[in-house]
Amino acid sequence: MTSRHWVLVNRPRGALKRTDLERTSRPLLLPGDDEVLVRVLYLAMDPAIRGFMNATGNYAAPVAIGDPVRGMVLGQVVRSRSTTLSEGQVVWGFGSWSDYVSGPATQFHPVSLDADFDLPAYAHVLGTIGLTAYYGLIDIAALAPGDTVLVSAAAGAVGSLVGQIAKIKGASRVVGIAGGAAKCALAVERYGYDSCIDYKAVEDLSGAIGHALPNGIDVHFESVGGAILEAAIDHLSKNARVAICGLISRYNAAHAEGGPSNLWNLVVKTAQIRGFLVSDILGRSDRTVAMLEVIACWIKQGKLNYDVDVREGFDTIPDVYNCLFKGTHTGRLIVKIADPESPGGG
Amino acid sequence: MTSRHWVLVNRPRGALKRTDLERTSRPLLLPGDDEVLVRVLYLAMDPAIRGFMNATGNYAAPVAIGDPVRGMVLGQVVRSRSTTLSEGQVVWGFGSWSDYVSGPATQFHPVSLDADFDLPAYAHVLGTIGLTAYYGLIDIAALAPGDTVLVSAAAGAVGSLVGQIAKIKGASRVVGIAGGAAKCALAVERYGYDSCIDYKAVEDLSGAIGHALPNGIDVHFESVGGAILEAAIDHLSKNARVAICGLISRYNAAHAEGGPSNLWNLVVKTAQIRGFLVSDILGRSDRTVAMLEVIACWIKQGKLNYDVDVREGFDTIPDVYNCLFKGTHTGRLIVKIADPESPGGG
Repeated sequence: MTSRHWVLVNRPRGALKRTDLERTSRPLLLPGDDEVLVRVLYLAMDPAIRGFMNATGNYAAPVAIGDPVRGMVLGQVVRSRSTTLSEGQVVWGFGSWSDYVSGPATQFHPVSLDADFDLPAYAHVLGTIGLTAYYGLIDIAALAPGDTVLVSAAAGAVGSLVGQIAKIKGASRVVGIAGGAAKCALAVERYGYDSCIDYKAVEDLSGAIGHALPNGIDVHFESVGGAILEAAIDHLSKNARVAICGLISRYNAAHAEGGPSNLWNLVVKTAQIRGFLVSDILGRSDRTVAMLEVIACWIKQGKLNYDVDVREGFDTIPDVYNCLFKGTHTGRLIVKIADPESPGGG
Repeated sequence: MTSRHWVLVNRPRGALKRTDLERTSRPLLLPGDDEVLVRVLYLAMDPAIRGFMNATGNYAAPVAIGDPVRGMVLGQVVRSRSTTLSEGQVVWGFGSWSDYVSGPATQFHPVSLDADFDLPAYAHVLGTIGLTAYYGLIDIAALAPGDTVLVSAAAGAVGSLVGQIAKIKGASRVVGIAGGAAKCALAVERYGYDSCIDYKAVEDLSGAIGHALPNGIDVHFESVGGAILEAAIDHLSKNARVAICGLISRYNAAHAEGGPSNLWNLVVKTAQIRGFLVSDILGRSDRTVAMLEVIACWIKQGKLNYDVDVREGFDTIPDVYNCLFKGTHTGRLIVKIADPESPGGG
């Protein structure tokens, strides 16, 4: 038995190119003690993966040349030498762009399937994306009822959830930033934003933010960076909190860009900027299980919309990956590799 | 009766020039109900004052053209129409570059004189500077025993105290950054730093920080900004805290500089940057009185050194002020305007 892999053969400069990767087949590694073999069903296209391809890595070590590209997978245990995960169990965890991944059972988190949800939901709102939105907004940014909220990439996977959760939790006004009229309409009509600024259409982004939030920003949820972060810092209110889950504007940058020139405003407004990684709470299943239950409840109540953009086929992965940075997808972008063997979903 | 004032006649571009100010005399305004008239004894030369001179101000409103420059004063109540402050009481508070200031009694904080200290100590370690160091390090940066600490402007008024308080509170390693061999020697020999990096002498500041703190920075106390802040961000450890009390590198800048290009590291290290203003806790006398008592105790135990650089004379103020940015002073820079009338000190 063999597994297909997309392996890194060149470190990309700028956007990932097809020639930076190579499709190979390698014999399957069978699981050792306390390990499992997982068949990959869905691969999540995350911006942070681009960072793993650089020589310096980012929060994870760089992918070595010749190794499969790493990323979050939703899969099914097909061979288990662990007492905690049985064969047939659907799991998610850190894997690679491969048909099969194997590793310690502790690397994979079991999914409690619910007949109300398709499998892709677990690669989005009921997985790391939902947790990122909830953890960032509630634990890191300490959203309080009455707060005003600004969210970058408001129509993106995380942003689409952040806006809705902010409203559910009593934010007084939630404003998004997105690129293009269609995304802005989606943010307002489907994701509950009070208004959404089209950063591609406005000449003065900072002015537009000031107009949309004249009393300032209590919470800013940032995943873009660059000019958007700087404009947001201009309008922080007293004791504002900025939560950064990523800075997509720089992932493809061949050279470092200057950062925000207005950090002085953090002093003036006694504000804070915090970076966070959802991986920090994945080991705390008491907390994450509760968060995901709350999120599932909101969805069933019709309070929380989410969108998954499922593409098909192992061969499409490199091209699909670049859609992330072009913004030509809607919601969470995932690639379907295979169907599950017996339990529901799909 | 009249009072002399240094009033702002031009908004400075870059460093304050003598021609941006004018010395005038104006009749004294006698205090109204619940107000006091305070004779200024000492004027504190604070970097932030430069920001008040700009059209945009900073955390305080700009000084209007024709108004006296504002700043922290240590003085003595000479006329009181308040029940809380009696005549003769030594106070500190927000005033102006004037012989006399008047205002609501609530604007001034009574000083509990202690025979062990000269009056200038209350314009430094037993006043806002001591509070800035303590509040920033303990409340904002949440210093914990065993933390590694980096402090910019380590031989400056605030930095000289931060390093020593960090050691007292159990920091495992405290590294300073200062400009010039003399200041670095002072930081190590007098202010308890384990080592001090001369940013003017090193070619690669980030490399020098990495060498001095190979396991990373748990707490960074920042008052400079620019290249120093960026280099510090390079070396943050997991869950690091950066406390910013000021960004002196930009106060005189005629144009905005780019900010740190490496904020991505806040995500990688799940670190945070917090700006703070000591003025936020001045109203909480329960907390500030306790902080100042602890600081006084440490000084009496010989654990905490401080230096005050006292210059004399009202006419010298504009020239003395620019010493702040040239770094030609040692410790806290203050100007003596007058002697107190009866209580001790001076």
